[in-house]
Amino acid sequence: MAAESKMKTKKVAIVGASGYSGEELVRLLLNHPHVELVAVTSRQNAGQTLAQVFPKFASHPKSKALRFTEPKAELLAKLADVVFLALPHGVAAEYAVPLLDAGCVIIDLSADFRLKHAEIYREFYAHDHPAPELLKKAVYGLPEIYRDEIKKSLLIAAPGCYPTSILLPVIPLLNAGLVKPTGIIADSLSGVSGAGRKAEADYLFCECNESVRPYGLPKHRHLSEIEEQLSLAARTTVTIQFTPHLIPVTRGILTTLYLAPEKHFATEAEMKTLNEKISACYVRAYGKEPFVRLLEGKALPDTKNVTGTNVIEIAWRLDPRTGRLIVISAEDNLVKGASGQAVQSLNILSGWPETAGLV
Amino acid sequence: MAAESKMKTKKVAIVGASGYSGEELVRLLLNHPHVELVAVTSRQNAGQTLAQVFPKFASHPKSKALRFTEPKAELLAKLADVVFLALPHGVAAEYAVPLLDAGCVIIDLSADFRLKHAEIYREFYAHDHPAPELLKKAVYGLPEIYRDEIKKSLLIAAPGCYPTSILLPVIPLLNAGLVKPTGIIADSLSGVSGAGRKAEADYLFCECNESVRPYGLPKHRHLSEIEEQLSLAARTTVTIQFTPHLIPVTRGILTTLYLAPEKHFATEAEMKTLNEKISACYVRAYGKEPFVRLLEGKALPDTKNVTGTNVIEIAWRLDPRTGRLIVISAEDNLVKGASGQAVQSLNILSGWPETAGLV
Amino acid sequence: MAAESKMKTKKVAIVGASGYSGEELVRLLLNHPHVELVAVTSRQNAGQTLAQVFPKFASHPKSKALRFTEPKAELLAKLADVVFLALPHGVAAEYAVPLLDAGCVIIDLSADFRLKHAEIYREFYAHDHPAPELLKKAVYGLPEIYRDEIKKSLLIAAPGCYPTSILLPVIPLLNAGLVKPTGIIADSLSGVSGAGRKAEADYLFCECNESVRPYGLPKHRHLSEIEEQLSLAARTTVTIQFTPHLIPVTRGILTTLYLAPEKHFATEAEMKTLNEKISACYVRAYGKEPFVRLLEGKALPDTKNVTGTNVIEIAWRLDPRTGRLIVISAEDNLVKGASGQAVQSLNILSGWPETAGLV
Amino acid sequence: MAAESKMKTKKVAIVGASGYSGEELVRLLLNHPHVELVAVTSRQNAGQTLAQVFPKFASHPKSKALRFTEPKAELLAKLADVVFLALPHGVAAEYAVPLLDAGCVIIDLSADFRLKHAEIYREFYAHDHPAPELLKKAVYGLPEIYRDEIKKSLLIAAPGCYPTSILLPVIPLLNAGLVKPTGIIADSLSGVSGAGRKAEADYLFCECNESVRPYGLPKHRHLSEIEEQLSLAARTTVTIQFTPHLIPVTRGILTTLYLAPEKHFATEAEMKTLNEKISACYVRAYGKEPFVRLLEGKALPDTKNVTGTNVIEIAWRLDPRTGRLIVISAEDNLVKGASGQAVQSLNILSGWPETAGLV
Repeated sequence: MAAESKMKTKKVAIVGASGYSGEELVRLLLNHPHVELVAVTSRQNAGQTLAQVFPKFASHPKSKALRFTEPKAELLAKLADVVFLALPHGVAAEYAVPLLDAGCVIIDLSADFRLKHAEIYREFYAHDHPAPELLKKAVYGLPEIYRDEIKKSLLIAAPGCYPTSILLPVIPLLNAGLVKPTGIIADSLSGVSGAGRKAEADYLFCECNESVRPYGLPKHRHLSEIEEQLSLAARTTVTIQFTPHLIPVTRGILTTLYLAPEKHFATEAEMKTLNEKISACYVRAYGKEPFVRLLEGKALPDTKNVTGTNVIEIAWRLDPRTGRLIVISAEDNLVKGASGQAVQSLNILSGWPETAGLV
Repeated sequence: MAAESKMKTKKVAIVGASGYSGEELVRLLLNHPHVELVAVTSRQNAGQTLAQVFPKFASHPKSKALRFTEPKAELLAKLADVVFLALPHGVAAEYAVPLLDAGCVIIDLSADFRLKHAEIYREFYAHDHPAPELLKKAVYGLPEIYRDEIKKSLLIAAPGCYPTSILLPVIPLLNAGLVKPTGIIADSLSGVSGAGRKAEADYLFCECNESVRPYGLPKHRHLSEIEEQLSLAARTTVTIQFTPHLIPVTRGILTTLYLAPEKHFATEAEMKTLNEKISACYVRAYGKEPFVRLLEGKALPDTKNVTGTNVIEIAWRLDPRTGRLIVISAEDNLVKGASGQAVQSLNILSGWPETAGLV
Repeated sequence: MAAESKMKTKKVAIVGASGYSGEELVRLLLNHPHVELVAVTSRQNAGQTLAQVFPKFASHPKSKALRFTEPKAELLAKLADVVFLALPHGVAAEYAVPLLDAGCVIIDLSADFRLKHAEIYREFYAHDHPAPELLKKAVYGLPEIYRDEIKKSLLIAAPGCYPTSILLPVIPLLNAGLVKPTGIIADSLSGVSGAGRKAEADYLFCECNESVRPYGLPKHRHLSEIEEQLSLAARTTVTIQFTPHLIPVTRGILTTLYLAPEKHFATEAEMKTLNEKISACYVRAYGKEPFVRLLEGKALPDTKNVTGTNVIEIAWRLDPRTGRLIVISAEDNLVKGASGQAVQSLNILSGWPETAGLV
Repeated sequence: MAAESKMKTKKVAIVGASGYSGEELVRLLLNHPHVELVAVTSRQNAGQTLAQVFPKFASHPKSKALRFTEPKAELLAKLADVVFLALPHGVAAEYAVPLLDAGCVIIDLSADFRLKHAEIYREFYAHDHPAPELLKKAVYGLPEIYRDEIKKSLLIAAPGCYPTSILLPVIPLLNAGLVKPTGIIADSLSGVSGAGRKAEADYLFCECNESVRPYGLPKHRHLSEIEEQLSLAARTTVTIQFTPHLIPVTRGILTTLYLAPEKHFATEAEMKTLNEKISACYVRAYGKEPFVRLLEGKALPDTKNVTGTNVIEIAWRLDPRTGRLIVISAEDNLVKGASGQAVQSLNILSGWPETAGLV
């Protein structure tokens, strides 16, 4: 307690706080023990208080004092130690450059700094990278994989929601050489909040309710960061199959992964051995992680068990009939898949307990 | 069968066929035994086939031949005997005037011709009535109440979804003098399709899912037609309390009505007598109606029992503790509350079986 | 901080922890800063850990150590200072009697101790009260109204979910004589969790999804406590009209209340004056309450703004057309309407900050 | 019309008419132009009318005359020409044997007669087959594949809902040798009605709403019929990976299939050629099928476009990055996946238009 109370509070701003990720950042940062939320910006809501824009935060003492402002880098630089960018790709970089120059730490939730190569960015995002010189400075903000790098970084690129649900289950297996880097399939189901608070007919209640549909086939933008990270883990170029689907829930991503074990298992004994290796691999990777829940026994992931939390659930099954390994993960796309994970990075780079404000 | 096969088919057009009511009209009219759907209009979808805009109709033989066009009155007048207008209020009248002049029958789903008085229209719709001279010619298209007038009319104003759910249960009771015309309360719950296919943030999946909320308090536009019709039934000016709520279903309106019986009931015998009078009143009014279902025994209305049909369910309870009569109705807002009822009027004025294309 | 750290932790048990209210108590008490959760009971889950029964709590350090046990009063009495009963009515009293005798504080979420009169209990619950001698000792656990009594009580009867949504908005108005105690109507919409985790066909997903329906008309059990409490506030016998409806959300109650102001308002000036009186009345009653949110301006309650919190939202509108006052409230039926409010009472009687573990 | 009116009406009974498939059969058969529904059975509802058990059918003239009876084979044999069995596996065979002996045609919706080999049945259903001698007589009731056999059969085994969604897209490709019979993955998402009207906690609204979860991994019972049928199409033993998931919709199955083309495609020209071959293959197989909708252009399947209809939507994409073929199908699990398809078989074996009662 003594140690905690000595922790220096940081002043934090959120640029683009009126979307779903931004709103979730507001929720988490308003209640974070070591954070003072000093600014929230939104073009459309400038001038309004937090309480007016988000009635659900109206009981918080700060909600009537804090007003949305226009996003102006020079102003934010004066107010904040850390700036979260919850903006569309392409736009985020515009703010990152001057804010970094002014000495702020940037935690960016867009795709702008997730990739190592500007040409891959152009291939997947269909425009030139707005600040390619920063790509080298950025750290991919997946705490369970890049904790040490996050500690020292000034520019964190928080991973996408789908990538998080795929990378956390697959990276340890590739690292350990337990599965082949080829033929990986990720079949993902996402809640509608993943589409953002855009007033588009496709995301109207009546279009999503009693509906399930794939979209973005076969080359979704998130493939770029997924494959880059998997390639790093496998130390070889990895190309995966990824199919996102929209399902009628507000929050949650469930990903079912189809993987080929490196080692063939034919007998029950071989299957048992492989199962133990996978289990050991996951326990080694995540056994002490506060936000990764390895399911045991007959339990399988269910988005309703992680909604509103920063936890990702992971379970797996070997199928002796097909020789495949099935791994399933569940996360809240707005928390572990976006804002919660971003706050986790903030905790790490600030030297705070990693779970601060997240439980 | 012989009689039916002699029935003359009518050529029908739908103006504004890309909204939810328009889409429902397409569904009903494509499968109507005496209708040839000759034109569908939509500014935004002009040039596309029915199958392209509404994949769910793509198995219908006509869906690939019929293309959306720009809405042009002179063209429609040449093609169609009957024109359905599924347009916003204010806009519908623009089409009604020339089409009526050209000899078409108009069935209008907007609010433009529902009221008798242009000044009431202005009070509730905040602009001058675009064609006040037509108000006298229009018939309020509530078939169970105005069947005879509908038979002879060239301009039908299909009632609003909320009004239908209120008027059908209340009018017979007022007609029979069983309830007081004062103090009526209508508490209504509507599915999100009632808001139309508008790309507004309020109707996004994530804003409606896991949400219930009232809106438009305390003076919703539909009050104008509700009160006008109730006043006619009661032969005195009726003012009611009406609270609409938005609930997370695609289709359905459930209305709970609080009414004061004219006759006080204190003993069990008085209650039994009153119950029998109400029952007799409803059976007299609706016992032979194909689309009104009077619930018996312990059954209570449930929107899922009427969804996709032109049926309205009605049940009632006397409460000896409060002396009140509670009446509950359930309907599909897009069918009995809009397009189905409009087709019912088409059947009546065409001399076809009233249920044609509706079961 | 110093004061807080000196606060004595209490040992708390939950009897009937496998239902929805019980699960919500587990969630709140696991994370309560001054509570040690020492026992959870459930006949059907006895022997299993918290983590096994509720995977979503599996990341909590206690979830693997704490096992469900059979509910045995003598054992609980040894372990716990405070026992929450989340049991059906009739059963709760069985545990309350021996546990009170053994010196435990009881916070009961059932209906067993909410009424002052055993004969009213029998009328509404259809069996004799199991421990009528305790009725006098029990305090109705509505903190905003009975805070002082709760401080001194050993037996708290946490109010029902519907009653909370009705009493908090109406009591101040009756206390202040602003509305008539006659003719009150409460039209309530509840999420399905209100029915409990009962495996009954009526509450299956396919029966509730895309469905809205009233039920329990016209004499719901909750009327007994609602009318008793309103009568106390009005100092006269109050009989109300109450219609519950089931809507397809997991959590949330929205109640729309129809009230008659004591004072007639005809002119705009009279309406303004009355509006100010109501506003002043509510601010006096709840202006400093941490869990009552009085909505201002055009905002109206929405269950999604209170879900997962202990907050009740209240808004009102005067309708000059009908002379009525409409008051609307929204709460989470499992939090403010059940477990959260029960924890609020625990905080009060323990001398802890009233918001401990609730924000 | 003349031809149609000469069509002999058949007397039809439904055994097990109170589940979701049974209810859907009732809906379809009540409105079928050539069917007289003469009996519906249900142990739990015996004695009640159709209108009482299913309020939504109460407007149908027959709904008050037709009463549920106990299921008694001798009685049914006297009443009906055709008997639909909507019973659990193991139980269906008990009725099939005596009814076939009595000369009835049987259309069975259970799994009892879908497999060719009793030992496979025992492996997947964990009990001995109750009437193995009938397996040879049964025809797998997938009309698009076995139309000729259905015409001549007295015992139709209507396929399972998941199998239909997998077999229709895959069989033509295997038949044509366009995809490899190895490595097939079927990732399926099902609405909750697939679980039947069982009062189990897992299927309560609150457990399914805002939830997505896989289940039955890795060896779901439906694999037996899927693999048997695929093996027939491929003329070699096929083993597939199949992962069912439960999603919060009432109706609908969406299946995403991952297939390996027999022919490698590297250049754009090769991809174009392969695409044309697949297109030609599907058009050949289904171009004239009234209930298979091959999607063109950018359209992708969406369950809301097939809900309530007997249509299955199919779309495909070649992925040049992975060399895979992705095929997606959408159907209503209760219609094309169960009762609608069963009625389609009835139409075929009766010599009626295949779409009778289904559009």
